[in-house]
Amino acid sequence: MNHRIAVTDGLAKEAILYLRKEEYVVDEVSFTKDEINKGSLLDYDAVIIRSATKLDKKAIEANSGGKLKVICRAGVGVDNIDINAATNNGIMVVNAPSSTTKSVAELTLGHLLSCTRHIPKGDRMLRDGIWAKKELRGSELFGKNLGLIGYGRIARNVSNLAIAFGMNIHAFDPYLPNEMFGGITKHETIEDLFSNCTHISVHCNLTEDTRNLVGEKLIDLMPKLGADGSNCGRYLVSLSRGGIVNESELFNCLNNGKLTCAGLDVFETEPVLKNNLLNSDNFIGTPHIAASTVEAQIRVGLESANQIINSLNGEVPTNLINKEILD
Amino acid sequence: MNHRIAVTDGLAKEAILYLRKEEYVVDEVSFTKDEINKGSLLDYDAVIIRSATKLDKKAIEANSGGKLKVICRAGVGVDNIDINAATNNGIMVVNAPSSTTKSVAELTLGHLLSCTRHIPKGDRMLRDGIWAKKELRGSELFGKNLGLIGYGRIARNVSNLAIAFGMNIHAFDPYLPNEMFGGITKHETIEDLFSNCTHISVHCNLTEDTRNLVGEKLIDLMPKLGADGSNCGRYLVSLSRGGIVNESELFNCLNNGKLTCAGLDVFETEPVLKNNLLNSDNFIGTPHIAASTVEAQIRVGLESANQIINSLNGEVPTNLINKEILD
Repeated sequence: MNHRIAVTDGLAKEAILYLRKEEYVVDEVSFTKDEINKGSLLDYDAVIIRSATKLDKKAIEANSGGKLKVICRAGVGVDNIDINAATNNGIMVVNAPSSTTKSVAELTLGHLLSCTRHIPKGDRMLRDGIWAKKELRGSELFGKNLGLIGYGRIARNVSNLAIAFGMNIHAFDPYLPNEMFGGITKHETIEDLFSNCTHISVHCNLTEDTRNLVGEKLIDLMPKLGADGSNCGRYLVSLSRGGIVNESELFNCLNNGKLTCAGLDVFETEPVLKNNLLNSDNFIGTPHIAASTVEAQIRVGLESANQIINSLNGEVPTNLINKEILD
Repeated sequence: MNHRIAVTDGLAKEAILYLRKEEYVVDEVSFTKDEINKGSLLDYDAVIIRSATKLDKKAIEANSGGKLKVICRAGVGVDNIDINAATNNGIMVVNAPSSTTKSVAELTLGHLLSCTRHIPKGDRMLRDGIWAKKELRGSELFGKNLGLIGYGRIARNVSNLAIAFGMNIHAFDPYLPNEMFGGITKHETIEDLFSNCTHISVHCNLTEDTRNLVGEKLIDLMPKLGADGSNCGRYLVSLSRGGIVNESELFNCLNNGKLTCAGLDVFETEPVLKNNLLNSDNFIGTPHIAASTVEAQIRVGLESANQIINSLNGEVPTNLINKEILD
C-alpha cells in the first residue's frame, strides 16, 4: 500500500505533484487543534507542516503508536514541534533549512539599503506630497564595517553579497570553529563587534541566551564614524527571530538618534498589529517575509518532499533534527 | 593675487576647506537670476554650481570678458549650462561624473530589492495595521535576467553588484563598442533586450532619441517567466533622468499587471507634488536622491575642486566637457 502524507499548512504545488508522481498519497488537509489531539494524524506515515500547526507533547502523544514515522517542517524553525516528545515516541523530525537562504540574504541587503537610503520613508513622503530630496541624504554601504551576529549559513550568504558592495565583514559567533571565519574579522565578544561596526545584522537563533541580547547598551558602543571616516550614521537590521532585539530600547535609540535607521522583519509578538516602532519615522518593518518568495517556497517543498521520501525509505534523512532517535 | 571661486549652490565643506588650504579665495554666495544676468560672476575666476543655478546663453554672455575661465558642475548632468555659449566665450565647462557612481548603483539595487520584496508596501501596510505576510510573497533576484538600457559607468557598476546576486546581465547600448560588453549579453535592439529580461533598469541619458523610450509596447515584450523558470513577475526601475520612462504608460502597466512593481527616482516633472503613480500600490518613488549620499557629495566636492585647480593652473582638466575650446 502506498504511503500517505498529510500536508496541513500548504506546500508548493510543484512538491505535491512530485510526491504524487513518486506514488505517495498526498492529502492537503486542515485539522483543528482538537482533531489533532484526538489523533487525526494516526493514519498518515508523514505530516508536512509549516508554522501554523503546533505539535506539542500532547499532540505528538495522541498521534503516536499508529503509522506516523516522520514530521517535516517545511522551513527552518522547529519551535512549534516538541522535539523530545517526538524522539520519545519514535517519530523523526526533519526540516528544510537550506532552501530559504538566498531569499533571506537578499531581503537582508534590501533592508540595509532601505535603511541607508531611506527608501520607504522617501516613498511615504512622496505619497504625502512632500519632495524631501534634501532631508533624505543617505550613505553608501561601500567601505563600511558590517557586523554579523551569528555566522551561520544565512550570515555567510549575506557576507558574500555585502563584500560585493565593498563592505568589510565582521562577525561574532561563539559556537563556530575558527576556520569558519575565513577572510573576515572574527570578534571574541559581542561588545567588540558593536564597537567596530556602524552596520549590524542579526543572524542568530532565539534562545534564552539571545533573548533581548541587542539593546541600547550595545548600540551605545557603535562607532560615530564609518570605517572610511564618513559620517554615515548607524544601522541595525534583523530578519532572524523576534525577541532578540529589545524593541522598546530600539525605539528609544531611533528616537534619540543613536541609530539612524533600523529594519525588522521579525517581532516579539507576531502578527504585529500595534507596535510603537511603527510610529518611528526611521523604522522599516516587513511582516516576516524573509523566506516568502516563489523560488524559496518551491525549494522548501522539494527539499521537504525529499526528506520525507528518504525517511520513509528507511534511510537517514540529511536534515534529521532528533538524531538521538538513531541511538 | 589669489584666484577667486564662487560656490553658488553649496559644496561639501571638505572641498571648500581643501580649496582654501590651496590658497584659493572661496565665496559661498547666492545670486538671483537678475544678479547673474548683470554680471555677478565677472570678478570670479571660477564658479561651482549644482543644478539650481541656470547658466543659459544670456547669463554666460553677461559674465564673459571678465575673469571667469571655468564653470564647474559639481555633479554629472550639465543640462543647466549652455555649453555652446560657454565655448564661444572661451569659458571651460567641467563636471564631476565619477564621484556618484557607487551611490547611484547602490540605490539601483535598493530599488530592485524594494520592488521584488515589496519593502515599502510591507512597511506601509504595517503602519496601517495590516500584517500582509501572505499577500507580500516576493521573488529572488538570483537566476534572473537583468536588462540594462545603456551600459555606461553606472550600469557597469550595477552589473557588478547584480552578478553577486546571481543575476545574468543583458544590455543594450548602441553607442558603445563591442569590447565594452565583456562577460555579459549584448543586444542589438531594445526590443530584443526587453524580450529577454524580467528585470529592467534604465541607465541612458535623456535625449530626443530616449524621450518616452520606455513604455507599454516594450513592457509587453517582457517574458512571462524568469530565466530560471520561476513565476517571478516583471520589474522596471529608473534612476537616470525623468522623461525616458513614459509615466502614464507605466501607470497603466502597474494597474493591468503587466508589471509587478516599478521604482522611479526621477520624474518627468520635478519636484513631484502630484503624480498618478503615487496612487499605485505597486509603485515605489524616491525624490531624486540617487547621488545624495554623504560620501558621494564629498567626492563630488573634491573632484570639482581638483578640476578647478587644474583648469586655473593652465592644465587641461580631465573632465573638460567643451573640448572644442582647445581648438
